Amino acid sequence: MDLTLAELAKGLNAELRGGDAHARIGGVAALHSATSSDLSFMLGQRMHYQALQRTRAGAVLIDKEWADKCPAPALIVGNPHAAFARAIALLYPDPPVETGIHSSAVVHPEAEIAASAHIGPFAYVGPGSRIGEDVVIGPGCVVEAGAWVGDHSRLIARVFIGADCAVGKRCVIQPGAVIGADGFGLAKEDGKWIKVPQIGRVIVGDDVEIGANTTIDRGAIEDTRIENGVKLDNQIQVAHNVHIGENTAIAGCVGIAGSAVIGRDCTIGGGVGIAGHLAIADNVHVTGMSLIASDIKEPGAYSSSLPAQSMRQWQKNMARLRHLDDMARKMKRLESEIVALKKELSKQAKEIER
Amino acid sequence: MDLTLAELAKGLNAELRGGDAHARIGGVAALHSATSSDLSFMLGQRMHYQALQRTRAGAVLIDKEWADKCPAPALIVGNPHAAFARAIALLYPDPPVETGIHSSAVVHPEAEIAASAHIGPFAYVGPGSRIGEDVVIGPGCVVEAGAWVGDHSRLIARVFIGADCAVGKRCVIQPGAVIGADGFGLAKEDGKWIKVPQIGRVIVGDDVEIGANTTIDRGAIEDTRIENGVKLDNQIQVAHNVHIGENTAIAGCVGIAGSAVIGRDCTIGGGVGIAGHLAIADNVHVTGMSLIASDIKEPGAYSSSLPAQSMRQWQKNMARLRHLDDMARKMKRLESEIVALKKELSKQAKEIER
Amino acid sequence: MDLTLAELAKGLNAELRGGDAHARIGGVAALHSATSSDLSFMLGQRMHYQALQRTRAGAVLIDKEWADKCPAPALIVGNPHAAFARAIALLYPDPPVETGIHSSAVVHPEAEIAASAHIGPFAYVGPGSRIGEDVVIGPGCVVEAGAWVGDHSRLIARVFIGADCAVGKRCVIQPGAVIGADGFGLAKEDGKWIKVPQIGRVIVGDDVEIGANTTIDRGAIEDTRIENGVKLDNQIQVAHNVHIGENTAIAGCVGIAGSAVIGRDCTIGGGVGIAGHLAIADNVHVTGMSLIASDIKEPGAYSSSLPAQSMRQWQKNMARLRHLDDMARKMKRLESEIVALKKELSKQAKEIER
Repeated sequence: MDLTLAELAKGLNAELRGGDAHARIGGVAALHSATSSDLSFMLGQRMHYQALQRTRAGAVLIDKEWADKCPAPALIVGNPHAAFARAIALLYPDPPVETGIHSSAVVHPEAEIAASAHIGPFAYVGPGSRIGEDVVIGPGCVVEAGAWVGDHSRLIARVFIGADCAVGKRCVIQPGAVIGADGFGLAKEDGKWIKVPQIGRVIVGDDVEIGANTTIDRGAIEDTRIENGVKLDNQIQVAHNVHIGENTAIAGCVGIAGSAVIGRDCTIGGGVGIAGHLAIADNVHVTGMSLIASDIKEPGAYSSSLPAQSMRQWQKNMARLRHLDDMARKMKRLESEIVALKKELSKQAKEIER
Repeated sequence: MDLTLAELAKGLNAELRGGDAHARIGGVAALHSATSSDLSFMLGQRMHYQALQRTRAGAVLIDKEWADKCPAPALIVGNPHAAFARAIALLYPDPPVETGIHSSAVVHPEAEIAASAHIGPFAYVGPGSRIGEDVVIGPGCVVEAGAWVGDHSRLIARVFIGADCAVGKRCVIQPGAVIGADGFGLAKEDGKWIKVPQIGRVIVGDDVEIGANTTIDRGAIEDTRIENGVKLDNQIQVAHNVHIGENTAIAGCVGIAGSAVIGRDCTIGGGVGIAGHLAIADNVHVTGMSLIASDIKEPGAYSSSLPAQSMRQWQKNMARLRHLDDMARKMKRLESEIVALKKELSKQAKEIER
Repeated sequence: MDLTLAELAKGLNAELRGGDAHARIGGVAALHSATSSDLSFMLGQRMHYQALQRTRAGAVLIDKEWADKCPAPALIVGNPHAAFARAIALLYPDPPVETGIHSSAVVHPEAEIAASAHIGPFAYVGPGSRIGEDVVIGPGCVVEAGAWVGDHSRLIARVFIGADCAVGKRCVIQPGAVIGADGFGLAKEDGKWIKVPQIGRVIVGDDVEIGANTTIDRGAIEDTRIENGVKLDNQIQVAHNVHIGENTAIAGCVGIAGSAVIGRDCTIGGGVGIAGHLAIADNVHVTGMSLIASDIKEPGAYSSSLPAQSMRQWQKNMARLRHLDDMARKMKRLESEIVALKKELSKQAKEIER
């Protein structure tokens, strides 16, 4: 969609400085690749200054502080990144979705489907489920009996929502996500595992995003809970009875074991492992591929990320690491020997003085 | 479903001590949250004693040793956890599944479907496949040509079973699991990879559980084998020609490379990586996010889990780790210097004596 | 399918030495398990020599150097592994696929489907999409509006291709793969995350294999690119704007963060994590479960793999690792003390001499 700078300024609540208010913007691009019909944005960091100076963008979303240095028409906003997100939504509106139930979908007569909802090809919606206003249930999705999907939420395709689970409003769930499979509950009897039936649900708040092929297990007895505004990337595993606090963002491939409680406003890097039955405070930030194995009580950054070295260097270091305890003990011995040497030396010194 | 304490005692082979045999139990809950209509259980560990003392549960599954300390009616059993699993199954029976083939399913005329089986909406069952008694093939499942699913097994939804693969009896396969995709078999020719066709199968034993979005590749030439009673959590990757022994339980996000052989009665923690072409003995237990890179010949616990520290601490330690070999060499030098000092010192001592 | 040794020699461009040209081969097997109707192969490594000596195979694909030592009829080729891959394709041809659109599929009237293509049960193909010659779209696949699938490519089952994404020729995409879900693009505003719409595409080259439940996100603004000949195993996560160079092979469970650029002819081991916004040179090889956290500019092998030890040993070493910086500082102190001791000792020596 084409918009004039004036329309963009209005839509984004921005102040236009420089440029023709009637000039048209048809797309977005990064500073270095934008052309005169593109909108770009400046993150307000010195490292982007060079790109700003050279940009050929038709307009740049920028904050007050940097606006003077912008060679292109400036759309001045408080938060250029957020405004850019809004601008993309304006310039690339989602294609309209046909309201109603596709002829190939199977919807149980006891399901409640809002009139404005869309149920796509090969979607199955079970009895007792409720699908809210403007909801999109994409192709191949399965919504089991008694599950709820709140207004304006979108299940892109091939999403599974288990029986009695609930998804809030304005959520986006990417393809292949599985919400409400059984948790991994086992009891041992006579040397064999028997399954503990999982009767809890998954409760997902509003404005949650759930990535492709991410899995969130239903609770064992009580529920697994994902609070409002949580953002989950792809291929995350959330075990039964986990609780993730508001606005926490978790990157791809993270595994969270059963009954872990994660605070609000946390960020968890990719590939992190979080052990079960522990609690992580609010405002905790964990770097990629770390392991959280016990409670974190203080906000702040935590890590056990181990960056690669050249194979030759690493193998040497790692071989030492495997004997680090021996090394520490030896150091202790050396320490004592040095103490002994010192004593001996001062004894001799005295003898020499005599 | 409501059951009396007497009915529960009978169903669970438990001895009822205290309480009214006609009192009704309608659900289950943890000790701390149970009400008078709930059944709970006591794991028989001191750490749960306080919760036991305060519980308001209608009855508690408990072992003999702790029964005297139970303030609520006690259902005395040998293994409270296993009995609790059974109790949940009694109190929350699975909803009855309609027998037969859903009108939207596509079942090849050359597939053999037991009369008591259920084939759900949008399920595809290929030629030459066999679906056993009481099997449930949930919505969106794909069972390719020649695949077998044993009696009483349940494929919850969107499960893929590749051609000629076999699943045993009483298995549960969670949504999104892929059993029998091609293994990652490549040969290099003129600097390019060519695909080695994967003609082995996946053979899954009886009483196996396979988690959501877990993938098990077919063998290259021979088969990939998952023995009876194996329990696999979500998002596990099992490469071609892996063999997993009986009753081994594997937590989420584990990756197992090709031709690895894992013993029986092992437990593998979440996020563990297991290299290819190695063998792990029976009764091996691996902690979360460890890497198994060579054979394990002795039962026992193994680990390379690296728990996170505060970012500041960790970065200091990690910087040292990257030069650990230098540090070890330096220590060796210090050691020699101390030896030299000692010699020198005793030489001087003798000179002083003279 | 049965083939004579003469037919195999011709089909594989091999020289037959020994054996009856009319003898029939019906399958393939490893050297140790092959029978007289099986073809096997010898990798040309001393470690396989014993198996070669004992083999009962009907014929062995082998290179010139080893052919003299082969007790069975030898099919001499330059690259036995590649020839073996070809032989399997000859002996186990894919079952013929019915051309045309399955009656249960939903194909938008504005989709272009080649006459020789197959669209399977419950597949959905959106408007403006193009499906090439001999393409197989398996059961339950979703090809969104405007997506392209090149000639001879196969989407096995339950594959998702997002709107406007493109897949090249002769690709194989395993079940559950998700190509073109939204990238994880977030902007923070007033303490909450807002979604940055993802308008880039995924562009997949020719001869690419994509494993089961692997996810490749669409670009934020520009495209995510997978070059020709790339091979991706199962459960790999490829974030938005990643670029993977030609012929690079990546093992299962790898996570690649946004905008990472990976060179050509690389091999990445299972479970590796690759941080975002970095560049990896061509011909880089990374061992399993390593973390790449910064640019790699030189070809070669890199690692931070940490193999497990017995729990007891590891816990001791790990406890030391958590204080490695203290240990290094202490060592520095000991070093100074030794220097001081030496000085003191030589001072005394001089005094004794006097």
